[in-house]
Amino acid sequence: MEVPGFYGAAVEAGIKYKDRLDLGVIFSKPSCNLAAVFTRNIVKAAPVLDSIAVIERSSSFRAIVVNSGNANACTGKQGLRDCESIRKRASQLLDCKEEEVLVASTGVIGAFLPMGKYLAGLERACLSLREDGLLDVSQAILTTDTRHKVAMRQVEGRGTPITIFGMAKGAGMIGPNMGPPQATMLAFVLTDAVVDPEFWQSVLEDAVDASFNRITVDGDTSTNDTVLALANGHARNQVIDGQETLSEGFKQALYDILQSLAEQIVMDGEGATKCVRISVRGAASDEDARVCASTVSNSPLVKTAFFGQDPNWGRIIAAAGRSGAYFDPNKVTITVGGIKVADRGVSLGQEAEKAAAEKMKKSRFDVELDLGAGKAEYSMLTCDLSTEYVHINADYRT
Amino acid sequence: MEVPGFYGAAVEAGIKYKDRLDLGVIFSKPSCNLAAVFTRNIVKAAPVLDSIAVIERSSSFRAIVVNSGNANACTGKQGLRDCESIRKRASQLLDCKEEEVLVASTGVIGAFLPMGKYLAGLERACLSLREDGLLDVSQAILTTDTRHKVAMRQVEGRGTPITIFGMAKGAGMIGPNMGPPQATMLAFVLTDAVVDPEFWQSVLEDAVDASFNRITVDGDTSTNDTVLALANGHARNQVIDGQETLSEGFKQALYDILQSLAEQIVMDGEGATKCVRISVRGAASDEDARVCASTVSNSPLVKTAFFGQDPNWGRIIAAAGRSGAYFDPNKVTITVGGIKVADRGVSLGQEAEKAAAEKMKKSRFDVELDLGAGKAEYSMLTCDLSTEYVHINADYRT
Repeated sequence: MEVPGFYGAAVEAGIKYKDRLDLGVIFSKPSCNLAAVFTRNIVKAAPVLDSIAVIERSSSFRAIVVNSGNANACTGKQGLRDCESIRKRASQLLDCKEEEVLVASTGVIGAFLPMGKYLAGLERACLSLREDGLLDVSQAILTTDTRHKVAMRQVEGRGTPITIFGMAKGAGMIGPNMGPPQATMLAFVLTDAVVDPEFWQSVLEDAVDASFNRITVDGDTSTNDTVLALANGHARNQVIDGQETLSEGFKQALYDILQSLAEQIVMDGEGATKCVRISVRGAASDEDARVCASTVSNSPLVKTAFFGQDPNWGRIIAAAGRSGAYFDPNKVTITVGGIKVADRGVSLGQEAEKAAAEKMKKSRFDVELDLGAGKAEYSMLTCDLSTEYVHINADYRT
Repeated sequence: MEVPGFYGAAVEAGIKYKDRLDLGVIFSKPSCNLAAVFTRNIVKAAPVLDSIAVIERSSSFRAIVVNSGNANACTGKQGLRDCESIRKRASQLLDCKEEEVLVASTGVIGAFLPMGKYLAGLERACLSLREDGLLDVSQAILTTDTRHKVAMRQVEGRGTPITIFGMAKGAGMIGPNMGPPQATMLAFVLTDAVVDPEFWQSVLEDAVDASFNRITVDGDTSTNDTVLALANGHARNQVIDGQETLSEGFKQALYDILQSLAEQIVMDGEGATKCVRISVRGAASDEDARVCASTVSNSPLVKTAFFGQDPNWGRIIAAAGRSGAYFDPNKVTITVGGIKVADRGVSLGQEAEKAAAEKMKKSRFDVELDLGAGKAEYSMLTCDLSTEYVHINADYRT
């Protein structure tokens, strides 16, 4: 998993835990065009505020410094000063400008970064950058995740192969919000392609809206959600700007990568034993389809029924009914694991439910609601709500 | 717990479980004025649809027939026909009109009522009505509740004592919705007062908005939520219509009863070990205060932190930040159990958090957010999210 021109390294800085990679650096030799989206939570962590400010005054980037274990959120002016110190030190170590460095954090909210350990770790990381170091970075960004999340595609760029690589973290505090630009976790996308900056930003926003904005673990939007996408141009292809022939394949590869990472996040959701696609069809409007899918995906009663492998479609239709979407309950059809369990709002009986319960034993299945009210549709990925989710989050800080 | 002129009885009809009261009848000798509010979920159970239709063509009432174990929701035309059969049979047994009978149900969605057992039980209940039978009815309406919920007040009506009695059920699928008239569980209020029908409806809506509309267990609004309030006039007091001197005391007693029942529901929330008041102050608008309190009250991460007795104010401010309410994170103050843990958006340190954690060991405590953005306020009662909640709802139908 290498991307030409990019280097990575991660170290055990001891920010919160011992014996665990928790600080990573991504560096590009050539300077990069950046596309980025951030959380729309109005409580934004210091690295998010810092990145937004840096992006306003800079147009070329070369490095990302990221840590887990501490979100540097709700840390006031001290938090912002810490981000500046990190960028300053990284620019010295990497021989680049302060404005070419971006900082990202994930972890506990409300605690100050241990800057002594942080800067010592940063130095070690910058001194050990390697072309094959990106996988280490994908490990260093994890918190309650149980596995790292990466995806890679190659696109043929008229004789010039183009690589796109993505990594992400996220298992809890995963909840979608309305419309782009918005993200729900940390993700970094690296490519050696030459990409027009405006096209890069617009295609990233669209891809995020089709992937990360359509997943939920607990519906709690984070203060730190960040997607940073760096294109370093190392492949020297014809510039990808949405007009030429390369754009479609490039865009599709980006969509595939973000979709894959989004699915990996839900599959690894805190305590999750099931990954479920909620597809709403036949809605009266796009917004109806979206709120219906979102409300069903976040309903505690629906999610506990998934954990119990119970095709309790009554909870599904009840959640749809409170979502704000308009429909006639007597026209609703519900399918669980491909088995129709309710038709025109009424049960299809015990046999159908037994067959659906059988399908729910799998770790992945689909739920489809046809509201019978129009032609709009929307789908989301969610996971179940398990006793383990409660354990993880009741004990998170202790 | 008797209300002059009212009779109650409950039986083991075997609707879902054996050896458990599950069908109750409330009967008034004098005919009653009715006030009522119902769920605003657009998926409404048959007894809700039936009651709304009956109330449209009738203005005096004498009986409520209620069952647990089966919600008669998502049961189509059959469900409505079953309600009619119940009203018809009850009117014969009680020697009143069909339109004087109202039906309410709670339990599993999507199953037809076992009408043979139901009507046999109804007959036995009607034949065993007693003045001291109302407590039995309060037992018969329970589902996942662990205890029955009643409240009573007496008001001095210028020489005529007036009694107001309330009973409620609700432990799961408890979630508020916007604005009255709406309820989030089953509750029946009985009084022997003479009350003007318009005043009765208006004061009930206000009292529900100040009580049941401000609680949550899981945020899932039910298909069956119903509050029925019967006033039979047995006390022969001067009519209470909002103009005379009795109204204030009567209104306050009604508020006290619904507030008490609402708190009892949260205290008995599925798997709940904590009952927490979330008070938002300093909001820029009433709607901001409401959405902020509601989002924090329903956040899975906040609720699991309560279960873990962890004063994790970072999760609280993060939930507030995604709620849609406007505020400056640097002006937010958060208090947990009376201990200030965050000031102007920044931690007040480990000692404060330790002191707050100590307060969270109690089964009841308050969380206060001052947003520093205005003067609006709103408060809600919520409970924690425990492993037991997941157990109860993963195994509910099996």
